[in-house]
Amino acid sequence: MRTCILYIAHSLDGFIAGPDGDLSWLPPPRKEEDYGYHEFIAEVDTVLMGRVTYDFVLQHPPYHYPGTTGFVWSRARAGERDDNVTFTAENPVALVSRLQTEPGRSIWVVGGTAVIHPLMQADLIDEYWLFVVPVVLGHGVPLWPARGRPLRLRPRDVLAYPDGLVRLRYFGGSR
Amino acid sequence: MRTCILYIAHSLDGFIAGPDGDLSWLPPPRKEEDYGYHEFIAEVDTVLMGRVTYDFVLQHPPYHYPGTTGFVWSRARAGERDDNVTFTAENPVALVSRLQTEPGRSIWVVGGTAVIHPLMQADLIDEYWLFVVPVVLGHGVPLWPARGRPLRLRPRDVLAYPDGLVRLRYFGGSR
Repeated sequence: MRTCILYIAHSLDGFIAGPDGDLSWLPPPRKEEDYGYHEFIAEVDTVLMGRVTYDFVLQHPPYHYPGTTGFVWSRARAGERDDNVTFTAENPVALVSRLQTEPGRSIWVVGGTAVIHPLMQADLIDEYWLFVVPVVLGHGVPLWPARGRPLRLRPRDVLAYPDGLVRLRYFGGSR
Repeated sequence: MRTCILYIAHSLDGFIAGPDGDLSWLPPPRKEEDYGYHEFIAEVDTVLMGRVTYDFVLQHPPYHYPGTTGFVWSRARAGERDDNVTFTAENPVALVSRLQTEPGRSIWVVGGTAVIHPLMQADLIDEYWLFVVPVVLGHGVPLWPARGRPLRLRPRDVLAYPDGLVRLRYFGGSR
């Protein structure tokens, strides 16, 4: 079955963005280190994100996910297509459940929390690739759902990068 | 100068206890693995905790920190002593600042958040030993202060245990 992967960076205190979506605390891209991105993206043929995340992506060209099938969850634009993605009103849980019955490679859940949280709570995220940035932000957009049901993950491996990022990988509870 | 250390376990979503102080999600003690505790405690001669944490400790004998000098932050019992600790109304920032001018070994900040948060925010925690438990609790007692000022930590090392716990060690920003 196709693997649904959350590949995301977060602060030590669990934020994926600072206030107002601030991402300036993320490490700058470096030529000598891609945090396993190329290995990861080679296994991905589908990306899923929310409408706010997609707007952010469009504001930072070139398009990050060329060659992938893209879905953007948007009730307002449901049924539309652009050069990159299809907009859909199908909720993330139904969409991922359906995609996983179809042939294909991995599905990358890009964000944001409107997409991530229901998938976590439905235990549809098969793999967590979490990049822990050594900063405590204090506030922002939380990765984890507040008052969600407890979820036990299965550890896969840990990798420390020279710049202080740590990659924690887990399997979702359902696999 | 004496090192002030936060040695603590937390869930993936950053809780040090579940609702109502629940700790049942922590891994059970195991003979074959002490998570570096004996090495750690050998360097500690002083423990600092809040009154609620101390009450919890007393409810789970034998006393966890024999042979250490203990301080419990409690306005109600300030000036009292018992067999283990001295109760003090001196706030954690003033107390740790003062202890660090005196000779001695490391100071362990045991908890809870009433003690941890002001020390974090004053950047008085020199070392973070964080044990990440592979569970998402959903709610509980947060390790990190909400709406605190941002804090950049300096990575030290990472250790993965066979049972899935990960120890992340950082130096505080001030050192």
